[in-house]
Amino acid sequence: MCTRPTHFARQTISSRLFLWSVGDGIKCKFKPPSYHKNRRVNYFRPGSKSAGKGSIDLSFQRRDLLMEIAPRTRNSWKKRVATFVGGDTGIWRVTNTKAVAGPPLKSVDRIEVVEGNLAALPSGGKWLIRGVTSNDRYTTRKEHEMLLSRQPALGRPEATHAALIPITKSESWWQLSQSERRGIFETRSGHIRVGLKYLPAIARRLYHCRDLGEPFDFLTWFEYAPANADAFEELVSILRQSEEWRYVEREIDIRLAREIST
Amino acid sequence: MCTRPTHFARQTISSRLFLWSVGDGIKCKFKPPSYHKNRRVNYFRPGSKSAGKGSIDLSFQRRDLLMEIAPRTRNSWKKRVATFVGGDTGIWRVTNTKAVAGPPLKSVDRIEVVEGNLAALPSGGKWLIRGVTSNDRYTTRKEHEMLLSRQPALGRPEATHAALIPITKSESWWQLSQSERRGIFETRSGHIRVGLKYLPAIARRLYHCRDLGEPFDFLTWFEYAPANADAFEELVSILRQSEEWRYVEREIDIRLAREIST
Repeated sequence: MCTRPTHFARQTISSRLFLWSVGDGIKCKFKPPSYHKNRRVNYFRPGSKSAGKGSIDLSFQRRDLLMEIAPRTRNSWKKRVATFVGGDTGIWRVTNTKAVAGPPLKSVDRIEVVEGNLAALPSGGKWLIRGVTSNDRYTTRKEHEMLLSRQPALGRPEATHAALIPITKSESWWQLSQSERRGIFETRSGHIRVGLKYLPAIARRLYHCRDLGEPFDFLTWFEYAPANADAFEELVSILRQSEEWRYVEREIDIRLAREIST
Repeated sequence: MCTRPTHFARQTISSRLFLWSVGDGIKCKFKPPSYHKNRRVNYFRPGSKSAGKGSIDLSFQRRDLLMEIAPRTRNSWKKRVATFVGGDTGIWRVTNTKAVAGPPLKSVDRIEVVEGNLAALPSGGKWLIRGVTSNDRYTTRKEHEMLLSRQPALGRPEATHAALIPITKSESWWQLSQSERRGIFETRSGHIRVGLKYLPAIARRLYHCRDLGEPFDFLTWFEYAPANADAFEELVSILRQSEEWRYVEREIDIRLAREIST
């Protein structure tokens, strides 16, 4: 795994100068070739500091991507994609990790939530997982509206507890028809029904990643105040006992506390 | 746009030797750093030829990707992703292109269908678009089974005509609830119902790409025998008149004939 900043490739564009650094300090400087002219080239923000060991360069956020030329990426997608970096930086300190099903992720001290698509691991990172928010897959109009009206925003000051629960469902789940999945998800497991009971106490965001080639199908993210910690345990416990959960073949439960790194 | 092979970065792994070539012939040779040890690094097949102008290296297919380190990519995804390269090579010769809605794609002579994810444009290519096959989004069990039983495989010898129709739907479509989209898609537009009538004459495959950050939401691919060309026109015409199509904001209709490049 990459733990040193020299161990991944990066590209800096500043005016007409390119800097390409790969591996142990090898650098190539050259003018941008004409093919870059009509392409969107992702870049580090000029003047951003190289990440030292043990820190993630926060300027990676948003537009600043590693090793990716994305000529056709739509703006709307860039606002939907997020990268979760497990390592030793980030405002979210890991308080507990449990591999509920399937192989664990490497144990980390902190998680950095990056708005945008990081294509390579920043220094200090042990793993990264990515996902995109997307359209509803199982809602009726009524459910859709209830969710929209009751869901609080992320980042509430009092919501100092969080959970990142990456989930993978089995191939047999994905081979079902849409109506069968809806039947299991809502009619028989009450996923939306149950979730609505815990709104607005538990803020949530669902990231999809199966079609991105990621190891998980979903990254589920929850934020809540310490006073609602028991309610969150209850919610998780009810869902894990549902018929839907028989199709979950990998699940990691990572609990977090918001705490600025010292 | 990239038209010369020197104009994109590539990485070759052969035993313990790395070759990195960026821009105008700049190359760096070094041993793999330790961080590669636990990663899957995508590579050109050893011994594959560099693509010359006007040809796409067919060894790109499957495992051979450009500029992408994918440590966590699942095998099942690699079988689901495809890249369509518009350029001057490939067995599919473009016979007609029409921008039905929204901005056109650059006009090309041929399309190469690559099984796998090409992250950069091969030489001779003017554009590339990617998508993944995925789970059904709107089927009932009965529809799902009818589709499975009637759908022919791609690549039938007699199906020498094809169409690649990339489509983007509007944000208002994606903001609908699942049940509303099903209502428009099938109950009111009969997308599945109409499609089933043309099976097995018209073989089809649907690639999803909205969540991949691609410029299109879907790449629709059809293959049929010349004798069924009128049937295909009828199918396309019926769908374009449907309520569902009011949500299509970009659509390019590319017609193809299978013909080995000379």
